[in-house]
Amino acid sequence: MQFPSKLIENAVQEVSGLPGIGKKTALRLVLHLLKKSPETTQRLADSLISVRMQTQYCTRCFSISDQAVCTICSSSHRDDTLLCVVEDTKDVLALENTQQYRGKYFVLGGILSPMNGVGPAELRLDSLEERIKEGNVAEMVLALPATIDGDTTAFYISKRLKPYALKVSTIARGIPVGSELEYMDEITLGRSIQRRVLFETEP
Amino acid sequence: MQFPSKLIENAVQEVSGLPGIGKKTALRLVLHLLKKSPETTQRLADSLISVRMQTQYCTRCFSISDQAVCTICSSSHRDDTLLCVVEDTKDVLALENTQQYRGKYFVLGGILSPMNGVGPAELRLDSLEERIKEGNVAEMVLALPATIDGDTTAFYISKRLKPYALKVSTIARGIPVGSELEYMDEITLGRSIQRRVLFETEP
Repeated sequence: MQFPSKLIENAVQEVSGLPGIGKKTALRLVLHLLKKSPETTQRLADSLISVRMQTQYCTRCFSISDQAVCTICSSSHRDDTLLCVVEDTKDVLALENTQQYRGKYFVLGGILSPMNGVGPAELRLDSLEERIKEGNVAEMVLALPATIDGDTTAFYISKRLKPYALKVSTIARGIPVGSELEYMDEITLGRSIQRRVLFETEP
Repeated sequence: MQFPSKLIENAVQEVSGLPGIGKKTALRLVLHLLKKSPETTQRLADSLISVRMQTQYCTRCFSISDQAVCTICSSSHRDDTLLCVVEDTKDVLALENTQQYRGKYFVLGGILSPMNGVGPAELRLDSLEERIKEGNVAEMVLALPATIDGDTTAFYISKRLKPYALKVSTIARGIPVGSELEYMDEITLGRSIQRRVLFETEP
């Protein structure tokens, strides 16, 4: 694209560096900002700088946090005996959003992926073991991706932490709510009938 | 969505204010920035502030420009007798991108739209008339949207500037390159056969 304005060109260049945003979308966003008040752009820029420069990893669960220890880890209202292991901070946000989990979290920082050169040393497995060693955790919930790499990681973790005699669970796999059986892939459908659960009428 | 981090929440709020970007996409973009170097975010924020605070409307064509008069208006290599009238700066960029137009531009700042309360007074029609009065322009090319509002605006402009005995043209309407006839709407197809043009073999 040719731009009569170098400043627009530069902004489009930077915005289109974001994932899933091409040059055309970037231009649309930049022109949108030009139509809005200068304060809108100032607030946007400030919020990005703040989130980038002032957040840190929680020293306890390694999710992204505003303080040294995040609000979830420091909360006394949450169950210390339940520890949910996730790949990334975005998974913490997704689970929090369900409002169905009241335990604590631990962010691995990735999953094992030999294809991408991610081995056990790249993940926070030592820190996880330290956390388990403290002795508070009674159940570890593995909430990892439903992929081969996710399954491998779950298997690796459960083996490695076997000596601690923890209860280890994993989030349920099955048919997503709202799905038709006929459009579901065979493996999911096969597993969901194999690992069927007792039918309970809602209370 | 619930966010354990106020800073993430705030950034997601600001980013999701952009058109076509929902909360989930905004979160993805913010988490992307957190994974990249602080300089990436700094450059992005700086480019947005610069483009918003330092650009202005070109005093001659009213497109967005880094200087008081934009590079196209001040160029001596472009045909002063040809003036292309467009709705918005984004249309200037789209036409420039084709590299097929070597005249000058005039940005109306909108099109007539009674439904949205945009009348002649809201557009830069006086400035356009002033520009035509200068007497340099021999042909005015109307490059307005192929909609009812666009057609109305084109009709209004051509009537209003009739006294100046300009040659007035409009960009060609027809079947877009790469389209199959069977999937084209009836009105486009009907017009394209009605207003057929002489077949010329490429040189």
